[in-house]
Amino acid sequence: MTTYSSTLSPQSRNDCRILDETDELQSMFSKFVLPAGIVYLDGNSLGALPAASHERLNHAIRTEWGERLITSWLRSGWMEMPTRIGDKIAQLIGASAGEVVVTDSTSINVFKTLAAALALRPDRAVILSTADNFPTDLYMAQGLAQLLGNRHELRLVDESEIEQHLNHETAVLLLTHVNYKFGRMYDMAALTHLAHAAGALTLWDLAHSAGAVPLDLNACDADFAVGCGYKFLNGGPGAPAFLFVARRHQDAFRQPLSGWLGHAQPFAFDPLYSPADGVARYICGTPPVLSMTALECGVDLFLSTNMADVRRKSLALSDLFITLVDQRCAGFDLRLATPRDPAMRGSQVSFHHPHAYEIMQALIATGVVGDFRAPDILRFGLTPLYTRFTDVWDAVDSLHLILSSRSWDQPQFRVRKSVT
Amino acid sequence: MTTYSSTLSPQSRNDCRILDETDELQSMFSKFVLPAGIVYLDGNSLGALPAASHERLNHAIRTEWGERLITSWLRSGWMEMPTRIGDKIAQLIGASAGEVVVTDSTSINVFKTLAAALALRPDRAVILSTADNFPTDLYMAQGLAQLLGNRHELRLVDESEIEQHLNHETAVLLLTHVNYKFGRMYDMAALTHLAHAAGALTLWDLAHSAGAVPLDLNACDADFAVGCGYKFLNGGPGAPAFLFVARRHQDAFRQPLSGWLGHAQPFAFDPLYSPADGVARYICGTPPVLSMTALECGVDLFLSTNMADVRRKSLALSDLFITLVDQRCAGFDLRLATPRDPAMRGSQVSFHHPHAYEIMQALIATGVVGDFRAPDILRFGLTPLYTRFTDVWDAVDSLHLILSSRSWDQPQFRVRKSVT
Repeated sequence: MTTYSSTLSPQSRNDCRILDETDELQSMFSKFVLPAGIVYLDGNSLGALPAASHERLNHAIRTEWGERLITSWLRSGWMEMPTRIGDKIAQLIGASAGEVVVTDSTSINVFKTLAAALALRPDRAVILSTADNFPTDLYMAQGLAQLLGNRHELRLVDESEIEQHLNHETAVLLLTHVNYKFGRMYDMAALTHLAHAAGALTLWDLAHSAGAVPLDLNACDADFAVGCGYKFLNGGPGAPAFLFVARRHQDAFRQPLSGWLGHAQPFAFDPLYSPADGVARYICGTPPVLSMTALECGVDLFLSTNMADVRRKSLALSDLFITLVDQRCAGFDLRLATPRDPAMRGSQVSFHHPHAYEIMQALIATGVVGDFRAPDILRFGLTPLYTRFTDVWDAVDSLHLILSSRSWDQPQFRVRKSVT
Repeated sequence: MTTYSSTLSPQSRNDCRILDETDELQSMFSKFVLPAGIVYLDGNSLGALPAASHERLNHAIRTEWGERLITSWLRSGWMEMPTRIGDKIAQLIGASAGEVVVTDSTSINVFKTLAAALALRPDRAVILSTADNFPTDLYMAQGLAQLLGNRHELRLVDESEIEQHLNHETAVLLLTHVNYKFGRMYDMAALTHLAHAAGALTLWDLAHSAGAVPLDLNACDADFAVGCGYKFLNGGPGAPAFLFVARRHQDAFRQPLSGWLGHAQPFAFDPLYSPADGVARYICGTPPVLSMTALECGVDLFLSTNMADVRRKSLALSDLFITLVDQRCAGFDLRLATPRDPAMRGSQVSFHHPHAYEIMQALIATGVVGDFRAPDILRFGLTPLYTRFTDVWDAVDSLHLILSSRSWDQPQFRVRKSVT
């Protein structure tokens, strides 16, 4: 076991280099293809390319599609991809085999699972969430509520008010486990317990959690969850998403996006829908096989490590980032947006700054790639499989250089009003 | 212009070879990678691999994803893929730019457009379709009707009864333009006219039409349509689907699968959904870029030809198939399931046979790949860009050989009861 703590106050790039060399996850770095000269701290938006993905995709293109053609649905295992990759993801999130499928997008999966949760609480009308939840979750809830005749209220509260709003009206608590802007992580076990105590169900969005932090959905007694394939799971741009339905809820409802591949017998071509048993009924149409293939490569990399190691390194990286910014960037208006308490932190570090957009543009120009999020957030994703301690050093070094050499009165640093 | 008619009664494989050599679409054959020794007549289920797709996908994997990473959303044009590829498909189906997007699966797109159509006819409760429609369309209608509180009736009638059932109760006429089993094509203009005369809207599934037959949605005054990317469009296994919304209906309804990429300003991260103008509001989540990339290659091949040429060859191929079966396979219980009238025929030929399953297995064993569809259909897809007249000759030759050399009393030819 690597203990990063003994050396967690590196005073130089060389100290960071030593941390990298003794890092137990160091061997994972070579499993990725990363562009030279770039410090990539945006793997929480689009994960890097696993080296194995290129070859595996070539096989899928040339052999499975080009040569085997239609026979690949059985011969190359395409038909089982949603459940096969789902079972692999289940191992990363504390779910059992048969509780996860890979299908559609996160948005679509919010719709399916939210519809199920609302159907299981027919006498309750409130979907409780936070105003800073990732918008697509809220948009899908709004779309579903419209379709259901506006009988439900999507109640958006501040994080601090969740507990007081959980009551007999609450059908579902809809939360993103790690906030996309701030990297703040909820206590899933505690909030699920509170929701259940109020008679409500939970729907967790794991977009910034799966592959980023250890999860134990079943230990938390979670009801429903959705998650993203293209961020920490390195599944490629727009990779298909996954969903989790606790076994106890699987057969209680026919989810409404009832496509043919969620049918009990798709190739019987029966005009009447009859749902498959278990979580397979949450599959809808034909899966995008090439994108699924890339996702499986990304997920497979996690199966050769474990999330406790990933978490340990993740916190060491974010601790280092925060410490270095404290030391080197004090007095430049940066304000930490991510919790200092490691237990509340996902795998990213964010800062407020009134000129966040311009600073991120300048960072990207120097080869440090993070994200700007309106109105004032600098966001740095830390992906322990391929982010190095020297990357963190170099990022803060560039950040310090930019902050200490710019005057915000120059025209090119005026606050941009429009959002791109 | 090639005229196939003068030589449409070839009496030998050599006659077919001459037809191939003088075929104006012959140059398209080399644009595909096809396995040696295979007669592939299943391109209506999974289109063959375009030669350009392999290189283009490699570029998307290595350069766009691997090197450019997150910047590719703008720099590599990923963000515009749904509308850019949609505009290309529009050219193949008689739609205008800004009326088609590529997004999600056919099933999901049925849900979105059917929800819109029902909302535009709030006083009508009947979704009219046929019992032999492709099941996923019916399943999605059932799922939507359930969600809407079972206020709608999905009325399934025989093709011959459609007209008499179009009345003041009909909200939507939901039809697949070319039937997946029989290859029978509806008169889109006439049925759309009849539906409109009854005050109903139309939703056309073009799964077996786009890239197979000429279409002119706007000339037909069509309202909504969906279609598939992985069949005749050669977009790769499980390629994303498309949808069409006539411009006059686009801003009349917020479709309920309201994901963030259909928002007017996705990167404003507003908690309130505000739909994009036009057909872009039908986009939902993040698109599977690798699968979209392959689809664009498939679609691009069609832009270098025209659907009139494709249709002419398609009918020449199906005429030849039918003629050769008439001549060589008479007396073997084969019954043509596809209309003899070319105007009613899509781009496939199907036959009933009591031992269809066993015959197709035997054909596949000899390298002729078609499809079995329960209970008794042999289905042969004709994809004019890469199906040759000699392929048709060879397929019928194998079919004749199998029919004339087998006794159905042998145990291996007993009718299989279970469907795979």
